[in-house]
Amino acid sequence: MGPPTLDASVYLDRLARVRSAMDDRGVDVVMLSVGHDLPYLTGYTAMPLERLTMLVVPRGAEATLVIPGLEAARVVEQPGVFELVPWAETQDPTELVADLVGGARTIAVGDQMWARFLVELLHHLPDVAWTRAVDVVGALRMSKDAVEIDALAAAGAAVDRIAGELQRGEIPLVGRTEAEVSAHLGRRIVEEGHQKVNFAIVAAGENAASPHHHAGDRVIRPDEIVLCDFGGTMDGYCSDTTRCVFTGEIAPDVAEAYAVLHAAQAAGVAAATVGTACEDVDRAARAVIDGAGYGEWFIHRTGHGIGLEEHEDPYIVEGNDLPLEAGHAFSIEPGIYLPGRWGMRLEDIAVATDDGPRSLNNSDHDLVSV
Amino acid sequence: MGPPTLDASVYLDRLARVRSAMDDRGVDVVMLSVGHDLPYLTGYTAMPLERLTMLVVPRGAEATLVIPGLEAARVVEQPGVFELVPWAETQDPTELVADLVGGARTIAVGDQMWARFLVELLHHLPDVAWTRAVDVVGALRMSKDAVEIDALAAAGAAVDRIAGELQRGEIPLVGRTEAEVSAHLGRRIVEEGHQKVNFAIVAAGENAASPHHHAGDRVIRPDEIVLCDFGGTMDGYCSDTTRCVFTGEIAPDVAEAYAVLHAAQAAGVAAATVGTACEDVDRAARAVIDGAGYGEWFIHRTGHGIGLEEHEDPYIVEGNDLPLEAGHAFSIEPGIYLPGRWGMRLEDIAVATDDGPRSLNNSDHDLVSV
Repeated sequence: MGPPTLDASVYLDRLARVRSAMDDRGVDVVMLSVGHDLPYLTGYTAMPLERLTMLVVPRGAEATLVIPGLEAARVVEQPGVFELVPWAETQDPTELVADLVGGARTIAVGDQMWARFLVELLHHLPDVAWTRAVDVVGALRMSKDAVEIDALAAAGAAVDRIAGELQRGEIPLVGRTEAEVSAHLGRRIVEEGHQKVNFAIVAAGENAASPHHHAGDRVIRPDEIVLCDFGGTMDGYCSDTTRCVFTGEIAPDVAEAYAVLHAAQAAGVAAATVGTACEDVDRAARAVIDGAGYGEWFIHRTGHGIGLEEHEDPYIVEGNDLPLEAGHAFSIEPGIYLPGRWGMRLEDIAVATDDGPRSLNNSDHDLVSV
Repeated sequence: MGPPTLDASVYLDRLARVRSAMDDRGVDVVMLSVGHDLPYLTGYTAMPLERLTMLVVPRGAEATLVIPGLEAARVVEQPGVFELVPWAETQDPTELVADLVGGARTIAVGDQMWARFLVELLHHLPDVAWTRAVDVVGALRMSKDAVEIDALAAAGAAVDRIAGELQRGEIPLVGRTEAEVSAHLGRRIVEEGHQKVNFAIVAAGENAASPHHHAGDRVIRPDEIVLCDFGGTMDGYCSDTTRCVFTGEIAPDVAEAYAVLHAAQAAGVAAATVGTACEDVDRAARAVIDGAGYGEWFIHRTGHGIGLEEHEDPYIVEGNDLPLEAGHAFSIEPGIYLPGRWGMRLEDIAVATDDGPRSLNNSDHDLVSV
């Protein structure tokens, strides 16, 4: 399921901006298959199949959507946006694609295209220089327009309602397994309007010290921290929030560390102003945790961009000097993880705006005792 | 969720056979990331993330699993199978991978690796010839051992029970939407022991003429055909079956075509003996449909291989002269599609054995009136 189909004028405008970026970067052709660039530019989402779907966008000519004949009926045609070229079961689609690029010298391919198709294209087009389409489409996708921000905000509000239930004790924890609570969160994500559950991490006690813990048979006990990191896709756009609760009276060491985490997360959001480099947002959150002596236990970047994809540009990480622009949307999610003991993370999606950072998640930021 | 973790000796045996195939084909290094080759050889399934996971298998040295530091805790280490190399958030993992290949001239990459990582590797390793890992791992994965066949048979029996319910009228159709019936099938797939639903196509009447129809709001009516094509993944291995039912007394034109389809499907299975070329199996099924005058309405290949993946080698298609071997597993699924009127498909998973073809799906092959 991709995002809702938009008016052809939206796609034509986006393609015009892609072509302008191609000019700037000397890219002759963009090729998009599986992934989110294709629906962003055409409204069509490729099936992840051994049968190739590929949009070929030359800098100076109309785009062509090469598609398995079997899938052609699913395409909503967009006059002027692309020409549809279905291929038959016994044709070689990469040869078809190679024939469409003319004398291109530099071709940019979508990040999530299957490598097998690029290997085949390398053989058909041995003299081409290959680069990543994110260089020409990524900047566009990063800058969300008002409709996209509204979609992210709606998805964020939906998971906030679930976080509220968690914090009010309406989602039972003690005595259930992590997996049962994860399934409960997954059902609620769908009931709140998402078409797809992307993840529902539930990690209790010492398991919370593994940031990507897979919810399992561990039964949740009284007097421990429970980390819940969950999100889905609603009308094409993603939600993603993390809240921790404590099943009893909060242990003093946990309370002390959580106060630091809370301050770090707020510092990260506050730093996310237009013009600030992504790595400086990371540093702002990290400085609080470092300063309190927990630095070695904050073992990941501060955040990732979000939109059509759960993780996309811009990444809030040391080494990324990209300055934030109005419309950039990303997570701010510092964490502190003490192996064998406990872990904690606090995550909101934030948007950089001309009026300052805006948080799309607004459930209680405290460590609530349930 | 990947397949269950096996004893290290199984992986060592499979890796030895991969290295032997690398010798035969002059491949110096195999690189595996997202996809099913990696769990087949190590028990570990890579997350589809912008953070790279990559198994590097040199022909003459131990394999290395390069993995994001955050995911390292999820790896079940396999002593002697691979060395684990976690990378930190600010490192460049493709540089790390490139440093592991020595003076390799030919590198084979996994089919579903993200193209972005191959583009980055092209820049790090400009003089390498790139090829597909399916050339060295595919033949192994095609030949299923007894444990794998048992897993496919168990998944097949599970969907057969659901097909039986459909044929006995225990899954209500008339008055429900395709999407409701699809959700019902999905629930039953999980209840019958699958961990994952891969698809549940439900297409009524004229919608059945689109082979990959997406179940929608169309309400199922009396006196029409309903095509149901569904499957999932159970303990790592896939199921996939298609049955059609008719909501009333079967219309004569439909009955006539279905008799042809039924005979074609049986002819395809019967032809699937050890030593027969895949394309000859396709021809055997196609000849029946061609002979009855429906040839132009059979618009896809006869089948696809199945195992850890829903679609894998061998493909039962014109142009594939690969001879079947004992242990090859694949679908036999001819169809007849009359645009605007109706469509029908009949699908079993078959295995080539030394005792002849064995069908793993055994629900009623007739067009049942419900």
